[in-house]
Amino acid sequence: MRESLPVLGIGLIGTGFMGRAHALAFHSARSTFDLPVQLKLVALADADAARAEQCANSWGFERSHGQWEHLINDPAVHLVAITTPNHLHFPMAMATLEAGKTVYCEKPLAVTLQQADQMQRAAKKAGVVTRAGYNYQHNPMIVLARQMIDSGELGQIVSFQGEFSEDFMGDPMAAWSWRCEAAHAGGALADLGSHLLAMARYLLGDVESVCADSNTVHASRPASTDSQQQRPITIDDQTHALLRFANGARGTFSSSWLKHGYKNHLSFEISGTQGTLAFDQERLNELRLCRVGDRDGFQRLLAGPSLPGYAAFCPAPGHQLGYNELKTLEVHALIQAVCGNGNDGADFEEAWQVERLAAAIRLAAREQRWVALKEV
Amino acid sequence: MRESLPVLGIGLIGTGFMGRAHALAFHSARSTFDLPVQLKLVALADADAARAEQCANSWGFERSHGQWEHLINDPAVHLVAITTPNHLHFPMAMATLEAGKTVYCEKPLAVTLQQADQMQRAAKKAGVVTRAGYNYQHNPMIVLARQMIDSGELGQIVSFQGEFSEDFMGDPMAAWSWRCEAAHAGGALADLGSHLLAMARYLLGDVESVCADSNTVHASRPASTDSQQQRPITIDDQTHALLRFANGARGTFSSSWLKHGYKNHLSFEISGTQGTLAFDQERLNELRLCRVGDRDGFQRLLAGPSLPGYAAFCPAPGHQLGYNELKTLEVHALIQAVCGNGNDGADFEEAWQVERLAAAIRLAAREQRWVALKEV
Amino acid sequence: MRESLPVLGIGLIGTGFMGRAHALAFHSARSTFDLPVQLKLVALADADAARAEQCANSWGFERSHGQWEHLINDPAVHLVAITTPNHLHFPMAMATLEAGKTVYCEKPLAVTLQQADQMQRAAKKAGVVTRAGYNYQHNPMIVLARQMIDSGELGQIVSFQGEFSEDFMGDPMAAWSWRCEAAHAGGALADLGSHLLAMARYLLGDVESVCADSNTVHASRPASTDSQQQRPITIDDQTHALLRFANGARGTFSSSWLKHGYKNHLSFEISGTQGTLAFDQERLNELRLCRVGDRDGFQRLLAGPSLPGYAAFCPAPGHQLGYNELKTLEVHALIQAVCGNGNDGADFEEAWQVERLAAAIRLAAREQRWVALKEV
Amino acid sequence: MRESLPVLGIGLIGTGFMGRAHALAFHSARSTFDLPVQLKLVALADADAARAEQCANSWGFERSHGQWEHLINDPAVHLVAITTPNHLHFPMAMATLEAGKTVYCEKPLAVTLQQADQMQRAAKKAGVVTRAGYNYQHNPMIVLARQMIDSGELGQIVSFQGEFSEDFMGDPMAAWSWRCEAAHAGGALADLGSHLLAMARYLLGDVESVCADSNTVHASRPASTDSQQQRPITIDDQTHALLRFANGARGTFSSSWLKHGYKNHLSFEISGTQGTLAFDQERLNELRLCRVGDRDGFQRLLAGPSLPGYAAFCPAPGHQLGYNELKTLEVHALIQAVCGNGNDGADFEEAWQVERLAAAIRLAAREQRWVALKEV
Repeated sequence: MRESLPVLGIGLIGTGFMGRAHALAFHSARSTFDLPVQLKLVALADADAARAEQCANSWGFERSHGQWEHLINDPAVHLVAITTPNHLHFPMAMATLEAGKTVYCEKPLAVTLQQADQMQRAAKKAGVVTRAGYNYQHNPMIVLARQMIDSGELGQIVSFQGEFSEDFMGDPMAAWSWRCEAAHAGGALADLGSHLLAMARYLLGDVESVCADSNTVHASRPASTDSQQQRPITIDDQTHALLRFANGARGTFSSSWLKHGYKNHLSFEISGTQGTLAFDQERLNELRLCRVGDRDGFQRLLAGPSLPGYAAFCPAPGHQLGYNELKTLEVHALIQAVCGNGNDGADFEEAWQVERLAAAIRLAAREQRWVALKEV
Repeated sequence: MRESLPVLGIGLIGTGFMGRAHALAFHSARSTFDLPVQLKLVALADADAARAEQCANSWGFERSHGQWEHLINDPAVHLVAITTPNHLHFPMAMATLEAGKTVYCEKPLAVTLQQADQMQRAAKKAGVVTRAGYNYQHNPMIVLARQMIDSGELGQIVSFQGEFSEDFMGDPMAAWSWRCEAAHAGGALADLGSHLLAMARYLLGDVESVCADSNTVHASRPASTDSQQQRPITIDDQTHALLRFANGARGTFSSSWLKHGYKNHLSFEISGTQGTLAFDQERLNELRLCRVGDRDGFQRLLAGPSLPGYAAFCPAPGHQLGYNELKTLEVHALIQAVCGNGNDGADFEEAWQVERLAAAIRLAAREQRWVALKEV
Repeated sequence: MRESLPVLGIGLIGTGFMGRAHALAFHSARSTFDLPVQLKLVALADADAARAEQCANSWGFERSHGQWEHLINDPAVHLVAITTPNHLHFPMAMATLEAGKTVYCEKPLAVTLQQADQMQRAAKKAGVVTRAGYNYQHNPMIVLARQMIDSGELGQIVSFQGEFSEDFMGDPMAAWSWRCEAAHAGGALADLGSHLLAMARYLLGDVESVCADSNTVHASRPASTDSQQQRPITIDDQTHALLRFANGARGTFSSSWLKHGYKNHLSFEISGTQGTLAFDQERLNELRLCRVGDRDGFQRLLAGPSLPGYAAFCPAPGHQLGYNELKTLEVHALIQAVCGNGNDGADFEEAWQVERLAAAIRLAAREQRWVALKEV
Repeated sequence: MRESLPVLGIGLIGTGFMGRAHALAFHSARSTFDLPVQLKLVALADADAARAEQCANSWGFERSHGQWEHLINDPAVHLVAITTPNHLHFPMAMATLEAGKTVYCEKPLAVTLQQADQMQRAAKKAGVVTRAGYNYQHNPMIVLARQMIDSGELGQIVSFQGEFSEDFMGDPMAAWSWRCEAAHAGGALADLGSHLLAMARYLLGDVESVCADSNTVHASRPASTDSQQQRPITIDDQTHALLRFANGARGTFSSSWLKHGYKNHLSFEISGTQGTLAFDQERLNELRLCRVGDRDGFQRLLAGPSLPGYAAFCPAPGHQLGYNELKTLEVHALIQAVCGNGNDGADFEEAWQVERLAAAIRLAAREQRWVALKEV
């Protein structure tokens, strides 16, 4: 029966952390969902051809390439997933769009706003499905949060307090990496903050203006692990901002990669005239909710099968999804979109909007003034 | 390269919730781990042959059977996973052992202690690897808890407070099901409590004697959903017990399936002369720890890649595993054991010990007295 | 105006921790509440007459006594508060009752159940107001909990899980004290557990039968701080029990004074057919509540001025009462009772019932069997 | 003995919520602490002379006045406590300073920054002890937090996230009051936010520049409870800001009085290069701490008697102080300062600095730009 379904051939570029995460997510989507296509893992590309071959074997891809161009042009590949270092997103995605294929690119879209803009224009022109990897918004609890907001359950939304903090650069001896270079879209704002901005937009829509403050705490870091040499650091270790949303809500934004104790603290509180909602990615299966009523007080909601994204994995409540399942849900939504079923997830236009917002924050921090989004 | 590895053929019996969970776990183990075997999903069996065929297609099994005996005798099947209703575990597992094959049976092993005893004896005689589905103990945080206990970090262990509560039978209108029948190993003690007993044994070892109290809160339930007819209920809605461990620790045990607000509250606190450790399955990626020291106070530990079971899925801390990944870890440990690498997980002897402990609790509750395990 | 009110003369015996706590509570009750009497701090007694005088000066008492008998017979003293070591409660309370005066005795009532029984009989015969110091039940959140239970908001009550743990004896080098002697009503059960038993009775009423297990973890302790000598210890470091309530609820009980990390963990969960309620004295201004409903999940209730006991101290919610204010509320309820307004708080009969329950637990632990309360 | 101590005569102006809180705090300070003075509650003033007399009787003051000038000039009054509506603080405090007496004024110091400046200058000139009612910083846990920061335990401080939210104005039908008028120092920033600014300054010192955003959510409110008439509202319902501290730390600030679910959510997180510290006034006896180390993770610290401010009230840890005891600690620190022992608490200069900071935030919000404190 399954054999009669159309085939969707997957090509994956990159074999790092996110490469493997994509491979697992495609496998998991295939075994978890009744997909309207036959998903085939066709090709895997890595500049290191030997590694490409080895990973293709391990991860169940049919073939491998040392040159990503070959993968994009492989006629059996219909969808190209890009998980390489950030500066390669632009040429790879543009080539994929030129080939008229679906493109699924890890965030950030590009290393400059201009590139991101070109990409979203090219995507529109190509008329194909595009996706950026803002997987956190596929969490069923986040989908529920958005439903609560959209349905008016919280009343008119008046405030947003958001923070994405981790501590993996908290040690001043944590070595320099490409994440420390602006030219590679490095820094706490780009690396972590952009997830929070995508979340804020997903839940509350457009931001109209921002004011911001960025600073570098550790002015230099070892050039590499165990190196004696120090390398100067110029990107932000932390960024704080004020946000004004088009819907009238106001709020704060914080992003840091050196706040000890936090490992994945993508968190927010959203308050409306009828209630308050809070979330922390470190407890991704929970929402804290307080609604106006007789006996108020924050309530802990646990994810359960009344949420479709949860039900796909587990029929019993309280059993918890993991991070990897958010990626599977992203892949599933993408495949459904390719098949014309819905359009959940951040496409290139949305991803460009996120980067425009980050650019506005950067500009506001640099010039120490409020910046309207339309300036950017 | 992979092709040169020996093949391990999987046969799965049952297509319900746990059947699908097993299928997903085998897929996930294959794509997540570098296994020392080629895992092949050979055959799926269900008494409903049409359903067996459909599920085999969906879940990626090569063939299907309407009769489980055929699956067990299929020469390409090396490992038989049993996820049928409890009363079928015994004949299926015994036939698998007779065939000299690896058997992986959902908990409980059987519906009587005598059957469970026969099964563990047969397992020893067969000399094959056996496993029962106590997946919670494969949680990396539980593995860490055991290391802390075994290493003496908590000092001498003096107390255990354990509770496994859910609320899925909390509504008196929740209908009768086989879970309400003692003959099918029903009741809160068997259904939920046995997981907690397995956990207590995994962490603290043998229990020497018990005292217990069981009761039925809702004496009858609708015969089926929306039925007007009531059916009498005789199993326990909740069971409370006192435990005395061989290592000297004392403690309490509670199991309920009608405690509102709890969805998967497999929880415990273990205290020793040097510290206290607490866990709740509803936050499966966390441990609460207090060690004797200058500035004491409970600390929240988050799962991270220093734990191998976590690192297999994610290189960054705080991203969280989900319930299904515990099942994948169980499958992985089983495959490693089949290949002679380690022996993690509950084998039939251990599963029989868990049921012996449950039987002792049942006896203590029935006769309202302390029962030594050696009596059972 | 105030001068026209009748005078209530207070006599206090004991100048330790609880003596001072009583003195502060009388002061605080006087300045916080519009009392129907003029409260006069008349006399303070301590076997050390010099200390009695000094404390009387510091704490605002009119005079002091070296012999407690003089205080009880002082005609200006109408209410005698007893805060001495436990073994003196009996003679002091009996003398007070004989004098026909109100008696306010710290828990436990006595060091034997027989004494306690004599005391409650004498109280009935004397026809005066009596109180034992189970201050925790005067917490407005506990009063609210009881209202929820009594009103049926939680449905029929089916289970109780209670624990009172601290860690002040957790260090094996913590020295011997009278708290380590059974003859002084020492041990974790008497010292801490009795508070939990009083709470259980306050919330759920009579217990009908119990089974229990007690043990001593540290078999000897230094005879005094910094002493080289060890002194054998025979009382319980921890006690666990099963409880069967007259209302049909079943549950567990744990009491320990060596569970690291806990400082005042008087805690319980009570579940009914319509909801679950949880409390922890370490967060005394909060209740966790889950009621059956559309969107279930535990909710945190914060104390606020809708509760009279809170409103007496603060007109704004969320500002929190402290432990000492529970004692003030106890004193206030006592004074109201003396004036014929209500009868909140544990009188000698109730305090005797608590000790009977503790005695039943002790008997059950000693004889390793279920004990019906009527046996004791 | 006590009689030989010098007398400190207290005069209190105002009989509202804070008037009563002060009266209770003076009583409690007297009974809790061994003070180096005899504290006498001499006089109480209220514009309503009858009410003044009645409250003086109830609260234990020797006499009452209908005119506050008489109280200030009463020779037996050495310390004047001011708890009247905000616009009266200025004339009362100035008259007290002119009389050369100690002044203890509720926050805010005044309704304009100019007045506050005059007051702090007059205080300096008078050379007397002055205090403003920023009682939250007397919490022993806050004192501990400051010690941790000052000692370098958290390393170099790099960020501050602060929020003070309540919901008492969350209902759009909550009526207009003087708190809604800028001329009376109304609004969320002045009413709540100033406490958070005082806290930030107490913990981290001077702020150098700010950017801010204020808005009014409910543009009109009922003129009084149950009134049909609406009255326009112009002050801020919420204010968000960015802060740059002189020590290099950066951060965010939020203040709202319409965030549902919060009752006293004066909260902050402070991160340094060696750890992170978090506090929430709704759990005033706790700190959350994460220090760099082997096994990191946030730890809950509970208040205990190792902190002198806690030990004054309770010798056992985990028993919890309440809000009123913070006020008692404030009064105690003030009395000690009067006696030349230490100088804890916010004097008029410090209170003026807090209001300068609030003024800078207001200016930054009005002009939508960064404002340096030296501009104000």
